[in-house]
Amino acid sequence: VMLRVTPGIKPSTHSFIATGQVDSKFGFAAEDVPRAIERIDRLELAGLHAHIGSQIFDLAPFEKLGEILAAMGDYPLLNLGGGLGIAYTAEDDPPSIETYVESLLRGAPDDVTVLCEPGRSLVGNAGVTVYTVGTVKEIPGVRTYVAVDGGMSDNLRPMLYGARYEAEVADRFGGDTLCTVAGKHCESGDILIRDVMLADPGPGDVLVVPATGAYGHAMASNYNALPRPPVIFCSGGDARVVVRRETFDDLTRRDV
Amino acid sequence: VMLRVTPGIKPSTHSFIATGQVDSKFGFAAEDVPRAIERIDRLELAGLHAHIGSQIFDLAPFEKLGEILAAMGDYPLLNLGGGLGIAYTAEDDPPSIETYVESLLRGAPDDVTVLCEPGRSLVGNAGVTVYTVGTVKEIPGVRTYVAVDGGMSDNLRPMLYGARYEAEVADRFGGDTLCTVAGKHCESGDILIRDVMLADPGPGDVLVVPATGAYGHAMASNYNALPRPPVIFCSGGDARVVVRRETFDDLTRRDV
Repeated sequence: VMLRVTPGIKPSTHSFIATGQVDSKFGFAAEDVPRAIERIDRLELAGLHAHIGSQIFDLAPFEKLGEILAAMGDYPLLNLGGGLGIAYTAEDDPPSIETYVESLLRGAPDDVTVLCEPGRSLVGNAGVTVYTVGTVKEIPGVRTYVAVDGGMSDNLRPMLYGARYEAEVADRFGGDTLCTVAGKHCESGDILIRDVMLADPGPGDVLVVPATGAYGHAMASNYNALPRPPVIFCSGGDARVVVRRETFDDLTRRDV
Repeated sequence: VMLRVTPGIKPSTHSFIATGQVDSKFGFAAEDVPRAIERIDRLELAGLHAHIGSQIFDLAPFEKLGEILAAMGDYPLLNLGGGLGIAYTAEDDPPSIETYVESLLRGAPDDVTVLCEPGRSLVGNAGVTVYTVGTVKEIPGVRTYVAVDGGMSDNLRPMLYGARYEAEVADRFGGDTLCTVAGKHCESGDILIRDVMLADPGPGDVLVVPATGAYGHAMASNYNALPRPPVIFCSGGDARVVVRRETFDDLTRRDV
């Protein structure tokens, strides 16, 4: 086993996904680690584990992490968790995976094996959500709502963290119509993107939202009894379904 | 059919669940109603529909609603939507269903049939979520985390709207240990209740959270591949499963 510890580091990210600070539900504080190790009993302690947070662009905390964990004891394995941010929009400029790995290794002693958990940075940019536009509601002088056939049930991040995404009409990239992309759920908070420029979107248009490969499918719900969309892998012009579209029969399968 | 209109009323509630204001993805604005009615074509227009928001305690907006809709045209049916708030905590003092209905009827003309959609106020207080305590993490001088076997996957409202709930240890109501009830999901935002007094909770204790009958099961997800809990109806000492517990087989059923 490995022991999850709280390194006492608070990275620069949304408070919901900062996990390394002292006031955290996760991990043992440094002073409790010896007592926790005593109670591991017949299991073998392979090393220490920490995770300071998610969607992090400033690598400085990662450099300290190996040092802090190494100071807690001499173990062959240190798991420094995940957290490398990705580009959700063109303005985002995350560090490369190579720079991230260098930062992780800088603080750790030479003779330990360093593990990391780069989930979002591996799959986030691999995902593109494909919506169909249902209606366009123009409120003169106020806002133009572009309503799509999904929303907070397939991507909760805008509502939960104020996360920012981009979008394009699939066959007409670029555009100069200022739009707000709204989901189909029964609440005003179900807004996928506020203020994005689109090419005069209309009913039936296909809208693509990039960078939805992480925490979209994983956090999906059946809110308003919406069946969840399929997941399709595409490569070199080929496509195959890896998670099939949910059906209404699926939705009632657990009803007794 | 009925026509959803935007009455231009903004009730006092969380902005995510206020839906009657002019800047809304929902409904036709008053000035667009005649044009929308023209295009209804071969369908029969039975009346108008509005919904101003949810979890509302101040009934004044409901009194105006019937008037505003009646001014848009002479129809036999007015659906004034839902929105009556419920008590999530002992401090909440919502109006009674009777007072709410009186407010709805006050503004509507005598000769129309008034419909309403009192979802939350019917089922919200009927639900109690039952958790088991996993661990208790006391951080001296900071906070005591009580971790349960659920969280934002079965109740998203605390994270999404800052909604406040209460809790009790099932067999020891009352108590003087200041606790924060944390979910089991992989983010710091997964906190069900901040600062609630519990009776010295420990691993294995059963924790009950009342008022989870609305928007709990309905918004549930499989975040962190957690199977969703069952729904059980109880009455007069009898209990029966109405939605069975989700299994790991269910979770992979759509994988191709």
